Amino acid sequence: MKKIINHPADVVSEALKGMQFAYADKLDYTPGAEVISRKEKGTKVAIISGGGAGHEPLHAGFVGTGMLDAAVSGNVFSSPSPDRIGVAIEKMETGKGVLLVIKNYSGDIMNFGLAADLADADDIEVETVVVKDDVAVPDSTYSTGRRGIAGTVFVHKIAGAKAEAGASLQEVKAAAEHAIANIRSMGMAMTPCILPAVGKSGFVLGDNEIEIGMGIHGEPGVEKTTVKTAKEIAEILLGKILEDYDYSDSEVAVLVNGLGGTPLMELYILNGEVQKVLEEKGIKAYKTFVGNYTTALDMTGCSLTLMKLDDELKELLDAPCDTPAFKL
Amino acid sequence: MKKIINHPADVVSEALKGMQFAYADKLDYTPGAEVISRKEKGTKVAIISGGGAGHEPLHAGFVGTGMLDAAVSGNVFSSPSPDRIGVAIEKMETGKGVLLVIKNYSGDIMNFGLAADLADADDIEVETVVVKDDVAVPDSTYSTGRRGIAGTVFVHKIAGAKAEAGASLQEVKAAAEHAIANIRSMGMAMTPCILPAVGKSGFVLGDNEIEIGMGIHGEPGVEKTTVKTAKEIAEILLGKILEDYDYSDSEVAVLVNGLGGTPLMELYILNGEVQKVLEEKGIKAYKTFVGNYTTALDMTGCSLTLMKLDDELKELLDAPCDTPAFKL
Repeated sequence: MKKIINHPADVVSEALKGMQFAYADKLDYTPGAEVISRKEKGTKVAIISGGGAGHEPLHAGFVGTGMLDAAVSGNVFSSPSPDRIGVAIEKMETGKGVLLVIKNYSGDIMNFGLAADLADADDIEVETVVVKDDVAVPDSTYSTGRRGIAGTVFVHKIAGAKAEAGASLQEVKAAAEHAIANIRSMGMAMTPCILPAVGKSGFVLGDNEIEIGMGIHGEPGVEKTTVKTAKEIAEILLGKILEDYDYSDSEVAVLVNGLGGTPLMELYILNGEVQKVLEEKGIKAYKTFVGNYTTALDMTGCSLTLMKLDDELKELLDAPCDTPAFKL
Repeated sequence: MKKIINHPADVVSEALKGMQFAYADKLDYTPGAEVISRKEKGTKVAIISGGGAGHEPLHAGFVGTGMLDAAVSGNVFSSPSPDRIGVAIEKMETGKGVLLVIKNYSGDIMNFGLAADLADADDIEVETVVVKDDVAVPDSTYSTGRRGIAGTVFVHKIAGAKAEAGASLQEVKAAAEHAIANIRSMGMAMTPCILPAVGKSGFVLGDNEIEIGMGIHGEPGVEKTTVKTAKEIAEILLGKILEDYDYSDSEVAVLVNGLGGTPLMELYILNGEVQKVLEEKGIKAYKTFVGNYTTALDMTGCSLTLMKLDDELKELLDAPCDTPAFKL
């Protein structure tokens, strides 16, 4: 296995610690709970997210002014336990309430839900929202209903901006729900990822084979097919998204996301093709983000996310933010 | 070949165009010359860099306030022609002079040098600096003397900040030379990169083999060895750097750079080990950057860069900048 790691059992704690070293002036790391949190506690609604590790920079890379207050990490591809989530809640809650942003995987739903109940019992007001942006498959290996993937980043941005503006917990939750309703994503993979603890890939894609709609943990997608051009990939991914949600005559935020092993050059090429299709369809790209935002270890491939914008979402998307992986 | 591209002949122009789409409010793209430049021309010394494509976000990702005025791209791993460089110079020069930041490869030295001569003949004052930060090998396949690698990003930052502050061409050049004198880098590769036009890798590394000191075009390094832990890699890379330059009792800027195919999680783990070694040696990391800054297509591996800081370099490093791949 060719990975820059020490022992597979230590990858999560070592990665978070190594990350915090680089942002030590702004971020704290809580060992054991595997929580990255802002150094400065606010006086506002706290936004907390998290999930399995292996999707870096999600979630810890989005902790900072204008986005998350804390991110909780589980083991690789494995949900954080309720007590870890509780540590983040206790650390960052200010009396104004806490919003938990959860990706729709059964483990996360259960553990974040339990953590919310435990916090409620301690008289901390907690609300949850669930991101289920992946249009690939109706149900999947680890989810009932659609999976939550890269669109989560937009939910962090919108909820974070609303909270930073001093909104109430219910208003922040409503803004996050509004974003979630307007977001759709679709991905494809070209090579599988290798889990550090396993040392080899859990499935195989042939030399000339890709998988449309594969999940960010390698869950099955829609179909295996032959290698496609960037133009074809843009058409396939956008086609599936536009079939599901009517973005016509809209302004949208676009996220062309890499899965970890795909270089920026290829994501830029894909973006060129995505923008052409959007223009043909009369959809206006208001803001476009290209890079590795929600990855799957060293998987090669990409996902595409659209969020339909209105005046409220535009203002929240444009609000300044300062996190390791998202700065405006 | 599993890449998100259309035709191999079009990867450079399509990637730059696709990139510019995402930053259309701030950056221009000049087709044919393959130049990415700031939309707003300044009233200051212009900083221009460039080189072969395949190292994204270098160089175009560093165009913007506080860093480059323009970046010129050649084909993949191939120097841009003097006329392309001339287009960038003509477009961005303001009468205050132009600094060309060149990585030490024979093609770049020749083509940027010719472009400087041609500009001189047009009464445009041009100065050049050459980055040769890679301590791996004294001479290499495409260079006489040390290669220029990820340390180039720090040179862009320092020269860009100095120019933005209104310094003269000679002052900007002196600041860039000062940075170059204080920068050392060293890298390693785990898997080779695949050139789009070739479709397979130009060399082979075994399943349990890595190459210490490999260049960003796959040029030979110091030695092939077995897979190492993150701790060992940090020790090997830093060892070679510290052997070459005395950073003891210094404050340094640190760049833990990914080569394109290595995910952020592994770079964070490596950073943790790097910081431990620095602390042991009494070297203080003033600012640390972790991510993909200077890549080699889809190569997996990393490089490490240190820049010794003094008051001038600290101030220039800390100055605000706003580019796609470097924001402060």
